[in-house]
Amino acid sequence: MNFSFKTVALIGKYKTPAIAEPLLRLAAFLAEKGVSVVVDSLTAEHLGQHPYRVLSLAQMKSEVDLAVVMGGDGTMLNIARTLTPFGIPLVGVNHGRLGFLTDLSLESMKRSLFAMLQGDYVTEKRMLLSVSVMRKNVEVSHAIAFNEMVVHRSNIGSMIECEVRIDGEYLYTQRADGLIVCTPTGSTAYALSSGGPIVHPALDVMTLVPVCPHTLSNRPIVVSGASQIEILMHRTGDVHVRFDSHTHFDLQVHDRLIVARHDQPVHLLHPVGHSYYHTLREKLLWNKSL
Amino acid sequence: MNFSFKTVALIGKYKTPAIAEPLLRLAAFLAEKGVSVVVDSLTAEHLGQHPYRVLSLAQMKSEVDLAVVMGGDGTMLNIARTLTPFGIPLVGVNHGRLGFLTDLSLESMKRSLFAMLQGDYVTEKRMLLSVSVMRKNVEVSHAIAFNEMVVHRSNIGSMIECEVRIDGEYLYTQRADGLIVCTPTGSTAYALSSGGPIVHPALDVMTLVPVCPHTLSNRPIVVSGASQIEILMHRTGDVHVRFDSHTHFDLQVHDRLIVARHDQPVHLLHPVGHSYYHTLREKLLWNKSL
Amino acid sequence: MNFSFKTVALIGKYKTPAIAEPLLRLAAFLAEKGVSVVVDSLTAEHLGQHPYRVLSLAQMKSEVDLAVVMGGDGTMLNIARTLTPFGIPLVGVNHGRLGFLTDLSLESMKRSLFAMLQGDYVTEKRMLLSVSVMRKNVEVSHAIAFNEMVVHRSNIGSMIECEVRIDGEYLYTQRADGLIVCTPTGSTAYALSSGGPIVHPALDVMTLVPVCPHTLSNRPIVVSGASQIEILMHRTGDVHVRFDSHTHFDLQVHDRLIVARHDQPVHLLHPVGHSYYHTLREKLLWNKSL
Amino acid sequence: MNFSFKTVALIGKYKTPAIAEPLLRLAAFLAEKGVSVVVDSLTAEHLGQHPYRVLSLAQMKSEVDLAVVMGGDGTMLNIARTLTPFGIPLVGVNHGRLGFLTDLSLESMKRSLFAMLQGDYVTEKRMLLSVSVMRKNVEVSHAIAFNEMVVHRSNIGSMIECEVRIDGEYLYTQRADGLIVCTPTGSTAYALSSGGPIVHPALDVMTLVPVCPHTLSNRPIVVSGASQIEILMHRTGDVHVRFDSHTHFDLQVHDRLIVARHDQPVHLLHPVGHSYYHTLREKLLWNKSL
Repeated sequence: MNFSFKTVALIGKYKTPAIAEPLLRLAAFLAEKGVSVVVDSLTAEHLGQHPYRVLSLAQMKSEVDLAVVMGGDGTMLNIARTLTPFGIPLVGVNHGRLGFLTDLSLESMKRSLFAMLQGDYVTEKRMLLSVSVMRKNVEVSHAIAFNEMVVHRSNIGSMIECEVRIDGEYLYTQRADGLIVCTPTGSTAYALSSGGPIVHPALDVMTLVPVCPHTLSNRPIVVSGASQIEILMHRTGDVHVRFDSHTHFDLQVHDRLIVARHDQPVHLLHPVGHSYYHTLREKLLWNKSL
Repeated sequence: MNFSFKTVALIGKYKTPAIAEPLLRLAAFLAEKGVSVVVDSLTAEHLGQHPYRVLSLAQMKSEVDLAVVMGGDGTMLNIARTLTPFGIPLVGVNHGRLGFLTDLSLESMKRSLFAMLQGDYVTEKRMLLSVSVMRKNVEVSHAIAFNEMVVHRSNIGSMIECEVRIDGEYLYTQRADGLIVCTPTGSTAYALSSGGPIVHPALDVMTLVPVCPHTLSNRPIVVSGASQIEILMHRTGDVHVRFDSHTHFDLQVHDRLIVARHDQPVHLLHPVGHSYYHTLREKLLWNKSL
Repeated sequence: MNFSFKTVALIGKYKTPAIAEPLLRLAAFLAEKGVSVVVDSLTAEHLGQHPYRVLSLAQMKSEVDLAVVMGGDGTMLNIARTLTPFGIPLVGVNHGRLGFLTDLSLESMKRSLFAMLQGDYVTEKRMLLSVSVMRKNVEVSHAIAFNEMVVHRSNIGSMIECEVRIDGEYLYTQRADGLIVCTPTGSTAYALSSGGPIVHPALDVMTLVPVCPHTLSNRPIVVSGASQIEILMHRTGDVHVRFDSHTHFDLQVHDRLIVARHDQPVHLLHPVGHSYYHTLREKLLWNKSL
Repeated sequence: MNFSFKTVALIGKYKTPAIAEPLLRLAAFLAEKGVSVVVDSLTAEHLGQHPYRVLSLAQMKSEVDLAVVMGGDGTMLNIARTLTPFGIPLVGVNHGRLGFLTDLSLESMKRSLFAMLQGDYVTEKRMLLSVSVMRKNVEVSHAIAFNEMVVHRSNIGSMIECEVRIDGEYLYTQRADGLIVCTPTGSTAYALSSGGPIVHPALDVMTLVPVCPHTLSNRPIVVSGASQIEILMHRTGDVHVRFDSHTHFDLQVHDRLIVARHDQPVHLLHPVGHSYYHTLREKLLWNKSL
């Protein structure tokens, strides 16, 4: 057959031997249909003997037309940050519970992927954040985040205090446990526990959500995805910045964070008929009543 | 001089005799500078003798280049709903406290307006909502809202129950005191008291904010300004819809509300250097600390 | 046998013919065990032929040792307000979903009640509110509330504005959609949707919960059950007070509400091993995760 | 004169040389009135030459009738934890902004204290928490807290997961950034930023407030001050417990915290006419409107 995606990479949740069986099952199905199957090198460690080409994520650049990620939303976040700069679209298969990003189930993955290979899919673009940490005008750290970046006090620290500017204009000086800047995707993650709103994933906006702010009238603020958010650290020590709960970096007084939309969006593919709101209802238990 | 705005309408807060003195003072200043001054007919009732042309709001269509509204945000909301369909831009002068929409002060109004007449101003476009109430496929009511529309239980009603769809897709069945759909402008009004986020006024989004929802995991949701929100009333009687706390309409079971962005935006003019975030800090007391 | 409760009244949810079958089943069981069974007169309308004595709620005074209420929490609230002044303890059987107040199920009611008749039960005292509405020093209305009293704007009203004093000391002037004063029992009802805390039902406290307060730093306040709360209405018209979502009364400017603990508590009987926290987890879906 | 308090200790905010002048001024005033003045030894380091007896906090036991604490609420918290077990009552003088615990001002302190020495004062009892950390049935840490104890994830930790029991009864398994147990005094501190209710300081209750809970329907819970709260840590490492933001202790999996009311209350003295609600309005800016 003549598929939209000729070479498909399979990537499983790391350090999870249980992923081997369904992943190899999917690989066999795809290979049988004539797809060139590639397996991620770290994933391959748990697979035993198999006939598929093995590539590291870095090697997938310009080799792979589509990446199928099997695991939870955390796995998807990690893979998306690496593969998006290569322009590789992603499909998520949840291994366990329904995820916001991993919407195919193990039961339906063959059928869904077969339809998608034939061109029956919906592409959704999702914003990433690009964050630079500047220290005396030198970039000392840079990270990409799919969900959010969080400036947060460390265990000994009593609070963060930082000055926030949007497009150069002073917004406020925030005293709080932390300050989140999230993408629409991240609006249903940590930001939601901190009182942030749900933001439709297709919107081009960022949301600032304070964590336990000292000023009780402080509220989440939604700004344009085209804005540049600058966060200047006022207090010394015991504050760090985290990206997608994945990496973190210790901040010093006068450090300046520059947060903006990353220039490449994630391309998420969904089966036709995929419903974001359905996932929302399921995950937030809106179908149950008090 | 050769001004950007040749004919300027002055409109004051209704039923407020105290508006007469500053409004006539501004009128004299503008007339002296060579501007053709028009006074709104309802405002004129409190002005006593004066030399200016009097027009109703409806008569201002294609007669007026700029409307200066003196009062509070409530006055501005009312005038904007009427004059925006005529394409007339607006400037707000606050009579009393600083407003989100009325950013000129009585003290600085002459200087600010003089600069604006000479072309030194910033134009901001703000979204309006257009809401139709459909009963058996007949539109039984239609309204424009600048802040928000609210479906709310009436005093005897115990709650609202309504089914919400976004662009035809089922979102949820909401059981609550009420459901707000607000513009970015309205995000700092009633929606804020109900737990909604602050939304930058230039964004093209609408926010759904439930009022006292029965389902505790329910949260505000930000959707595209290009979306169509459909609200289908499930329960009988004792529910109404309000627009900008200005007009209201009693709803019946099976009534269907269609909420969308109005096709014309409000054009708000501000002095150069106007800061939305400054107003936010002042109004929400963020400059004070616990 | 020698039971703790010789005469037991059975009361079902009103206007609910489906209550007849389980209620008569329970009546037969109790009669067989030697209990003197009484049926509430309104409940009896749906029961058809039956051999039990019929009494109105008012007639139950000094006739009944225990009232078994079959229905939901709403039914329990209504019956408790009426029977508590007679000193009659209550047991709740839920007809449908588990309730906060109706903790016996239809399946287990015979077994549970039989044990309770033999003295195996836990008594829980729950506070009621007593509310007087004073107009020019005359009491124009009085009500008892089990969950809460709510001062709320009516549909045309834009807000309530009232001055609140606790034990004569000025607390605040509240501008909001409404103001709730709830018992610990009511803390899991309307107050919870408005952002109030959960209060253990055995505590002797009242909670003031503003509904959509204009002042964003306003928060629920927990005060002693021995306190007297005084609410003085500042604004005219379009405001009412509701009691347990059951009755309401229109308020006028200068009306003064006096809220205090009612001098008699509700006596709720539970099977040994009853767990309030279990009910909480079930009702609030805490056993499910995001 | 014959004062209620013969020996009065003066204690100032530590490492704050600016406290010297007002503290010595107060000392001179009291000495002149015939009071035996004692100065805390750490405070004395900043005072230069002075004629007063110097005692450490530990030495004040049975030597001092009243402690006057000059500083902010943080200083008051620290001193109260140490002196309360000695039965010494406390008065707070705020050095800077009005505090919840330090209600005398520098301007009025002489007058207020003179009246208090003559017996014109109000005594308020405030609950302390006593917290034991048990590891395999051995108490590995113990602390007293005036505001709150907080179990919180450390910087690398992603969340806390702990099982909570009240009086031996299972409440919930909490997954969150943290879990606060606060006294009524602490209800206006960190717990308030985390969404907890305000609790009148005279109440005998404790409040559990989750910090950014994963389960969105989770809410603060108010329980009896006579209850015992047990917190069993489920997850390994990267979690600590803090007491009044003052001391902290790293927790391990299976550590068990036992939280209960301390057997001695703080005795806070206030001038006659002191108003808790006044302080609340001032601190939370309720006198300002949106």
